[in-house]
Amino acid sequence: MHNPFFKNHGPFKIDGILKNIDLFNIDDFKSDLIYDVKDLVTAQVKDLTFFHSKKYSLVAKKTNASYCVTLKSLSEYLPKQCKKIFVDNVLLTMSKITSMFYPEAISDNFDSTVKDINEIKFKAKIKHGHNVLIGENVEIGKNCIIGHNTIIEKNVVIGSNCSIGSNVIIRNTITEDNVNILDGCVIGKKGFGFFPNKEKNLRYPHIGIVMIGENCEIGCGSTIDRGSMSNTVIGKNTFLDNQIHVAHNNKIGNNCIIAGQVGIAGSSSLGNNVMIGGQAGISGHLKVGNNVQIGGGSGVIKDVPDNTKVMGYPSKDLRKFLKDNK
Amino acid sequence: MHNPFFKNHGPFKIDGILKNIDLFNIDDFKSDLIYDVKDLVTAQVKDLTFFHSKKYSLVAKKTNASYCVTLKSLSEYLPKQCKKIFVDNVLLTMSKITSMFYPEAISDNFDSTVKDINEIKFKAKIKHGHNVLIGENVEIGKNCIIGHNTIIEKNVVIGSNCSIGSNVIIRNTITEDNVNILDGCVIGKKGFGFFPNKEKNLRYPHIGIVMIGENCEIGCGSTIDRGSMSNTVIGKNTFLDNQIHVAHNNKIGNNCIIAGQVGIAGSSSLGNNVMIGGQAGISGHLKVGNNVQIGGGSGVIKDVPDNTKVMGYPSKDLRKFLKDNK
Amino acid sequence: MHNPFFKNHGPFKIDGILKNIDLFNIDDFKSDLIYDVKDLVTAQVKDLTFFHSKKYSLVAKKTNASYCVTLKSLSEYLPKQCKKIFVDNVLLTMSKITSMFYPEAISDNFDSTVKDINEIKFKAKIKHGHNVLIGENVEIGKNCIIGHNTIIEKNVVIGSNCSIGSNVIIRNTITEDNVNILDGCVIGKKGFGFFPNKEKNLRYPHIGIVMIGENCEIGCGSTIDRGSMSNTVIGKNTFLDNQIHVAHNNKIGNNCIIAGQVGIAGSSSLGNNVMIGGQAGISGHLKVGNNVQIGGGSGVIKDVPDNTKVMGYPSKDLRKFLKDNK
Repeated sequence: MHNPFFKNHGPFKIDGILKNIDLFNIDDFKSDLIYDVKDLVTAQVKDLTFFHSKKYSLVAKKTNASYCVTLKSLSEYLPKQCKKIFVDNVLLTMSKITSMFYPEAISDNFDSTVKDINEIKFKAKIKHGHNVLIGENVEIGKNCIIGHNTIIEKNVVIGSNCSIGSNVIIRNTITEDNVNILDGCVIGKKGFGFFPNKEKNLRYPHIGIVMIGENCEIGCGSTIDRGSMSNTVIGKNTFLDNQIHVAHNNKIGNNCIIAGQVGIAGSSSLGNNVMIGGQAGISGHLKVGNNVQIGGGSGVIKDVPDNTKVMGYPSKDLRKFLKDNK
Repeated sequence: MHNPFFKNHGPFKIDGILKNIDLFNIDDFKSDLIYDVKDLVTAQVKDLTFFHSKKYSLVAKKTNASYCVTLKSLSEYLPKQCKKIFVDNVLLTMSKITSMFYPEAISDNFDSTVKDINEIKFKAKIKHGHNVLIGENVEIGKNCIIGHNTIIEKNVVIGSNCSIGSNVIIRNTITEDNVNILDGCVIGKKGFGFFPNKEKNLRYPHIGIVMIGENCEIGCGSTIDRGSMSNTVIGKNTFLDNQIHVAHNNKIGNNCIIAGQVGIAGSSSLGNNVMIGGQAGISGHLKVGNNVQIGGGSGVIKDVPDNTKVMGYPSKDLRKFLKDNK
Repeated sequence: MHNPFFKNHGPFKIDGILKNIDLFNIDDFKSDLIYDVKDLVTAQVKDLTFFHSKKYSLVAKKTNASYCVTLKSLSEYLPKQCKKIFVDNVLLTMSKITSMFYPEAISDNFDSTVKDINEIKFKAKIKHGHNVLIGENVEIGKNCIIGHNTIIEKNVVIGSNCSIGSNVIIRNTITEDNVNILDGCVIGKKGFGFFPNKEKNLRYPHIGIVMIGENCEIGCGSTIDRGSMSNTVIGKNTFLDNQIHVAHNNKIGNNCIIAGQVGIAGSSSLGNNVMIGGQAGISGHLKVGNNVQIGGGSGVIKDVPDNTKVMGYPSKDLRKFLKDNK
């Protein structure tokens, strides 16, 4: 998929890339053109990808990427035709390479392209409040409603019949139809991703977006960060209560119900029909299955299989939790 | 009590109501006029109420309602003169009936009736910031202060000597005198109440309001949702810290002190002089007594009697918690 | 240090002070002039300080203050030349005395001095969005960026190369260079400090400020309260994720990484290089050492020594937590 929002400054020659980030070209890669940086699954021939954890070995085996930044120890999982670039810190190297392709995706300053909505012509009629600002490259569907002081920054597609509340900020986001985003949400800012570095941390680019499926509701004061290399996704008909935080790269399924103040750390996936009680937290890089119920206040720190109910900190089988705490 | 904010589109004939929601009129109820839908306690003769859990059997016995939507198994608790309408899902049926009486209470789109405060004449002098918007049916008392970019949507009564911060959104709310609502709060939006439904959840109307007693303080970024069939109530001289979420229908007593990031799920009641430490969570439909102290981070999942101190997840007697965790 | 933001209405004579707050002048203190109220460490000769807990006995011994409000039981720790004023409730008395010196520090109403940024002349060029408001006594450095609807209230110093998002509110705050404050934050409001009082709580003045070190990032929707008698401090290159609450008087070190929805209660100190997982809570008045790692969801209720990893509620050694929960 072509990146819908961030300008790709490539292609770049592979030897130039390595030189630019001060990496010794040990295999003497020549002037192959690299067209894009992608994750293992979406990368195509002539793209560069990365592979930093054994966890992803199954998808690594099938990648179509021409080049892969990886660790020596993971080399065996990659297909032969994929050329390996061995480094000590895969993510740090990827951050530098991605910054070459997408320099605009590092910082997240306010969008200075916005104009008052009254100065903009939309094909569809929009009912809107006072002081609504709209950035460049924004599409809004039919019968939408946008509240006061709301800012739709650049790179946003809103479906039809959506209701956006007041004091909302949205950027780098695509919503389907009939989505409700309530007052005070911030959707699509860069995730909390950076490399700790004494004196001055090194931010990495976030070239992913936020995708919100049809019929979703996002409660007041919630924050949904956009992805770094992949997207943050909220499935269809999923409802979020107030003050929820969904970090970068999370994939949430359809028909989920997530109560107030829940936090979901980065790069986790939740199946369909997942119910989460208030204030529960889900750690990063986990897989929560379909039809899972997570009790309020739980701290989920490992994968949860389909059709199970868990509760506790750390979470365990609900019946066990109730028995242990009788 | 007459609903102060939502227009009642009734009365409707009982047989018409049942027909309208596709319910078979098994008892052949005739054309009795129903004037309002209310909870068991506040319903009067010619009102329709609902009774869905044995928990409410004591108040059910005394209801004055002429009709009650209920389960067959709960029939015995209701007085003889109250006519029973048996259904499988009480709340779903009530949602449909309430929507007939109060169709405006389902959605929560931004209030398009608001005007710049400078265009509105108030009897009392109000000190206000830039870009303050005021909706229809708003009353504001003497010596009030309203910060920048704040939106008082329709159906709000503010007492005297109140200070509202900046970036605040208030609707469907009554505050008494000397209330402070700090920056960024959202007060009076509909609660997180709906019927899960594959493809497209069914929202139910929230005809309750938020009532805030005198001398209260609500901290920055807090959200207080209005009730569905009853009100969300904050007692006198109760102080809430920042980033607190109070869900729909909660009743909080007087002189309570609630620290940052606490969440209170729906339909619970807290007594007077309750102190809650930071990040604690209270589950829904619970009763927390007077003079209760709840330690920070606790998860309260059952009733807490008067004059007790609890801590833990799930919460238990404070001394036991400290002993168990020595 | 001279208080940079709040006007000191002193000096006042000590006998006048005691009379004004209805305290019997048991030692018949005469008309010594008191120039300021300060904490034990920063108080100078002719200042008045307070000492209310044995915890602070080491610094009490070295105080330079001429007068100290304290408990009889703590008298022995104070130096001879420091005159003692014995009371039953040290903080309540200090609240009243501080209110004499700094009456403007009690309430936190919106700043009515703000003007549209276009009406203000800054030496440095500022790139700003729509509807930005700037109060009195505000300094902004070179190359700063300020988003839409943001309010910089009075008494704020912003360093160079800072990026402030949209819908942000800042007051009584000093930031160093290269600080990023993301959308929707509220920085510098008074802390959640008051004396519970039947009918009407008694707020105490907050004369501290918020100080944010260079290269910091503060995530969306976070709240950082200013200190009461001392400052709230965020060290250099410390990154906070979204929806974090930092209460009054906290001191956070350099190079810390604090994930989403963490809450830090008042008057605690964190060392350098502290990492805190999402939704963890730190109780008040604790000391967390250098290089500490606190797992997500933890509840820290006692001091944490340098170089340790903890997790759990209450938190314990990480290895023990993992073993106990296998």
